[in-house]
Amino acid sequence: MAYEIDSIHTPAFVVNEAVALRNIAAFQGHCDKVGLKLRPHIKTHKSIRFAKAQLAAGAVGITCQKISEAEAMLADGIDDILITYNILGSSKLARLRALSDRLAALSVVVDNSVVVQGLGQAFDGASRPLTVLVECDTGAKRCGVQTSDVAVELAYQISNTSGLIFGGLMTYPAVGMANDSAQFMRDTKQLLDEKGLACPVISAGGSPDMWTAAPDGIVTEYRIGTYIYNDRSLVERGTCTWDDCAGHVLATVVSTPTAARAVIDAGSKVLTSDLLGFPDFGHVLGHPEISVVGLSEEHGVLEVDPENPLKIGERVRIVPNHVCVVSNMFDDVWIEGEGGSLVQMKIDARGCVI
Amino acid sequence: MAYEIDSIHTPAFVVNEAVALRNIAAFQGHCDKVGLKLRPHIKTHKSIRFAKAQLAAGAVGITCQKISEAEAMLADGIDDILITYNILGSSKLARLRALSDRLAALSVVVDNSVVVQGLGQAFDGASRPLTVLVECDTGAKRCGVQTSDVAVELAYQISNTSGLIFGGLMTYPAVGMANDSAQFMRDTKQLLDEKGLACPVISAGGSPDMWTAAPDGIVTEYRIGTYIYNDRSLVERGTCTWDDCAGHVLATVVSTPTAARAVIDAGSKVLTSDLLGFPDFGHVLGHPEISVVGLSEEHGVLEVDPENPLKIGERVRIVPNHVCVVSNMFDDVWIEGEGGSLVQMKIDARGCVI
Repeated sequence: MAYEIDSIHTPAFVVNEAVALRNIAAFQGHCDKVGLKLRPHIKTHKSIRFAKAQLAAGAVGITCQKISEAEAMLADGIDDILITYNILGSSKLARLRALSDRLAALSVVVDNSVVVQGLGQAFDGASRPLTVLVECDTGAKRCGVQTSDVAVELAYQISNTSGLIFGGLMTYPAVGMANDSAQFMRDTKQLLDEKGLACPVISAGGSPDMWTAAPDGIVTEYRIGTYIYNDRSLVERGTCTWDDCAGHVLATVVSTPTAARAVIDAGSKVLTSDLLGFPDFGHVLGHPEISVVGLSEEHGVLEVDPENPLKIGERVRIVPNHVCVVSNMFDDVWIEGEGGSLVQMKIDARGCVI
Repeated sequence: MAYEIDSIHTPAFVVNEAVALRNIAAFQGHCDKVGLKLRPHIKTHKSIRFAKAQLAAGAVGITCQKISEAEAMLADGIDDILITYNILGSSKLARLRALSDRLAALSVVVDNSVVVQGLGQAFDGASRPLTVLVECDTGAKRCGVQTSDVAVELAYQISNTSGLIFGGLMTYPAVGMANDSAQFMRDTKQLLDEKGLACPVISAGGSPDMWTAAPDGIVTEYRIGTYIYNDRSLVERGTCTWDDCAGHVLATVVSTPTAARAVIDAGSKVLTSDLLGFPDFGHVLGHPEISVVGLSEEHGVLEVDPENPLKIGERVRIVPNHVCVVSNMFDDVWIEGEGGSLVQMKIDARGCVI
């Protein structure tokens, strides 16, 4: 059933489908042009519908962060998944093996030998081996091996483990490839070549530097999530414009206690407290003079221009600082189609943190 | 089915039931002693089971922030709900009237005449009138009328509206009652008395000052949410101890890239980015030397003592900075019972932001 924007309950998460599809097409076009395979990360939309749209546009497969996300993406036509996570523990490994049996291609990453051992035990005797990439910390200081030597050691361990295949290298983020990140990958690739270990995939990723993403003689695949919806952080970096922001929160003004203050029905349980360097909690479209100065759980406090106040009952559209976490707060998203019609769609992998 | 702690998937939200029930009993005891009615806010646990436990301990009713939360709390024995929110818009008002028909007592708050008008239209001709309290801004700078005079004007408007009954005054937070907050309420009460407007309820709330909550000759009801689980922010304020923290996130170490860094499988999609003044994102129980220095969506980066490192596969328990928002990230909570057995329970009102 289709609704009009004024008739849906707020707060609501709304995605303009035409803008989302245009964003998908634009970056797919970039990757096709520079010769990068694209493997979009579903963490932003968490929806089968948009994963299929990304694949239809030319993506080679999808990326998930957690095994439960990958399980939620199982659908006709989604048959190649990379889970960029160290997966460990017998019950998760059993789920991973079951998942593998339902896909044409499944790959994961590792950054330590404990995880390789577990994967090996889980896939020993499997009809199809599991592809395993080595995660490299090229500056993000999150997961990842610290040196090329350790990367090569892990590649050896994978190659020598029954049930596993060494699939290549992975890093995040790739702050442009003409830097230390690229050098780490080049050095490691050279070492692997010298040892005779094939390295078919070198996977980098990240939305902020998407338009400069290029193989640079080393990267083969690019992973990217936020680009489908975009958000305030990417506008601030110049990666996109407000018109490219497909996702926003629709909220209603419920109180105007003073001339300079308006309160909306979206708080931290909608917009989240992610600041990403901003001094406030989102951008009110069409109102650059307004700041979202405070959030409590179900209220957002706006500082408004007393000469240009908001009215009680008025609705505002807010582009989140960080859309990936906001999308995950809602069980459903409203898909805005032609002429502004709205259809509610379940967010398939919401809350899939396992 | 009951599980052991080592067998459940991580990240998980775990609540020790005995501690939660002890917290409920302790504050109910305080309220009984000082002569305050207690109306717990379900925003923290969002569960029918714990709402019933609060009522069984002696609460006079429950508080919800959103109408969808109240709808999710409908169950035998839960028949008195205060929704501390300006509710507006025809479809929400229709839901509110339907909700009223299913409860013995329903009340809401307002801070402006537009919302009073809408409530009046919705409850005109209702078999039972809606009780409406006036929200006062006594310093929190969120919602609420700014002066006692405006509070009295709204009380008049409510009293003169068919289908509505003026129920009293409400404020949040009540930073102790021996301050401006109490004075605002006393002044308003006096004005109401002079005008002959009965003010049966004066409702204050907030966990940080819970142990000093007292009627002080003015407050009749106290609303409180966090106290059932407690969190790091309340330990920091001295309101409770770590032993009183019933809720925590169970996470697994998935990577130890350097001697000083461990990475867990809980990120901002679990712990949230709520800092509440802390420099990091949670307290690792039993490890005061560890800082949760960074969160990405599905990873938490811990700074550990290289002399006392964590191992891959090791599990940690993290008390969140702000438990109310963390509880809302999960579809289910694990209830830890006698001897450490765990039973999974749906979080009834998760994501109920409408």
